Amino acid sequence: MNKLDYITRQFSRAEKKRLEHYVVTRIWHLLNDLSIKFVTQQYVSRPDGRALTDMFFPQLHIHIEIDERHHKKQIEWDKLREADIVNATGHEVLRVDVTQDIEELNKEIFKIVEHVKSRKTNSNNFKTWNIDAELNPKTYIDKGFVDLNDDCAFRTMVDAANCFGNDYKPKGIWKGGARHGKDLGKIIWFPKLYKNGKWNNSISNDETKIREICEVPEIAKSHIDNVLIDNRTRIVFARVKSPLGDIMYRFKGEYELDRNLTNYTDGLLWKRISEKVQTYKY
Amino acid sequence: MNKLDYITRQFSRAEKKRLEHYVVTRIWHLLNDLSIKFVTQQYVSRPDGRALTDMFFPQLHIHIEIDERHHKKQIEWDKLREADIVNATGHEVLRVDVTQDIEELNKEIFKIVEHVKSRKTNSNNFKTWNIDAELNPKTYIDKGFVDLNDDCAFRTMVDAANCFGNDYKPKGIWKGGARHGKDLGKIIWFPKLYKNGKWNNSISNDETKIREICEVPEIAKSHIDNVLIDNRTRIVFARVKSPLGDIMYRFKGEYELDRNLTNYTDGLLWKRISEKVQTYKY
Repeated sequence: MNKLDYITRQFSRAEKKRLEHYVVTRIWHLLNDLSIKFVTQQYVSRPDGRALTDMFFPQLHIHIEIDERHHKKQIEWDKLREADIVNATGHEVLRVDVTQDIEELNKEIFKIVEHVKSRKTNSNNFKTWNIDAELNPKTYIDKGFVDLNDDCAFRTMVDAANCFGNDYKPKGIWKGGARHGKDLGKIIWFPKLYKNGKWNNSISNDETKIREICEVPEIAKSHIDNVLIDNRTRIVFARVKSPLGDIMYRFKGEYELDRNLTNYTDGLLWKRISEKVQTYKY
Repeated sequence: MNKLDYITRQFSRAEKKRLEHYVVTRIWHLLNDLSIKFVTQQYVSRPDGRALTDMFFPQLHIHIEIDERHHKKQIEWDKLREADIVNATGHEVLRVDVTQDIEELNKEIFKIVEHVKSRKTNSNNFKTWNIDAELNPKTYIDKGFVDLNDDCAFRTMVDAANCFGNDYKPKGIWKGGARHGKDLGKIIWFPKLYKNGKWNNSISNDETKIREICEVPEIAKSHIDNVLIDNRTRIVFARVKSPLGDIMYRFKGEYELDRNLTNYTDGLLWKRISEKVQTYKY
């Protein structure tokens, strides 16, 4: 996927609502900067719950919310289940009132564009949007680590696993996790963080805790027992549906078992111990 | 309809083709000038036949054609029948190649935007787009005339008839034509310029000739005889479907019967004698 393809696909997601679409295309064209990535209709989690923002600039942590009076954003809960949910705690949210006339609306959009530009200019660690590099494990291997702030998601489990001293072939797939190629104390885990088949996993809104529950009585206990013996932490790449509808594996950080909050009733409780993990060449 | 509504409706017509849509929104947002009107997917007639252009600036007589390789524009002939077809003879056509990468495409769009701006700046008779005035008969009455270059189309027959010394009420409707309020030598005609019921009218590509054929044998001859006795010319507002799908009455000029080319076999032949007609207060 090249940038033109990406951008036009993002635009087409906002098409159903004409005013939202006007704002999104106008912000992006006037911003006129191919180094800035954007996402339309991004699900986010915030301390006050989950929400949908109309336009999101991941590098700048800015969200645009387009307010159409009488048109409260409807979250489609069935889509939310598998969705790629970005933790937007501490992010900036700019609102656009589309009930004004076009002259006022254009002025408001102009201010937003100027604001986004200045946020980029004043950022100390702005990294140019590179649509190929962001999907390539090599980017993170060369960098030496992957961080939550990197907005990192891969197209395949193999790409994720190969950031950690592995050299798996493109066809590789694992049920739950892959081994860490360099550190025996960690595994790479690819959970679905929603009820799915015999598993009922979930992540807290602030993404610091993952609850792992096996719903098959015959194996639930033994699974917990096995994990309790095992001492390895988990580098988590959650399986999600990207805003464009593709399956992606989204980096969530490194999690460790909380032995106090783990029990046969509530299942396993994983708590995040790091937002940044080291990467390794094969 | 306000401009925001108009513009977003125009944008939404290009939505099905992502690249076309990117180009249209980008040109318009970067042009950033509410005094310029545009139309998407405008049917045009040219000396070489009928065509569909992706973006049309009526005030400047500029068309944008967006070329997607392997995607030859398909004219939907059933829609063309009733469509508002603009005579684009002598108009300027700018092409955009969307098979380039985004940097090159953006450069090309930038040049187009600069060109459109300079055409406006260098025009001697540019009139600001006024979405209310363009639909109001008063605009043309105050001006003293209506001209093909005015891009004039009304929402109702009454609006058109009232440009000529009439004071009809909004509900008025006529089968074929309305009287001229000041000049007994003319009538206002609202033909459908396509096969419809017992009539089979058509207009030439250059719009200088209208063929009027009655297909009911019992009345075809007497209709021709009556018109031959009558000496009135016809100010034509053709019934069309606007690009946004609304019925409109599009000014086509003043036509006079060509007695040499009129006969019982081919029907009546009207030829345009003026692109500009005088308007009158009631």
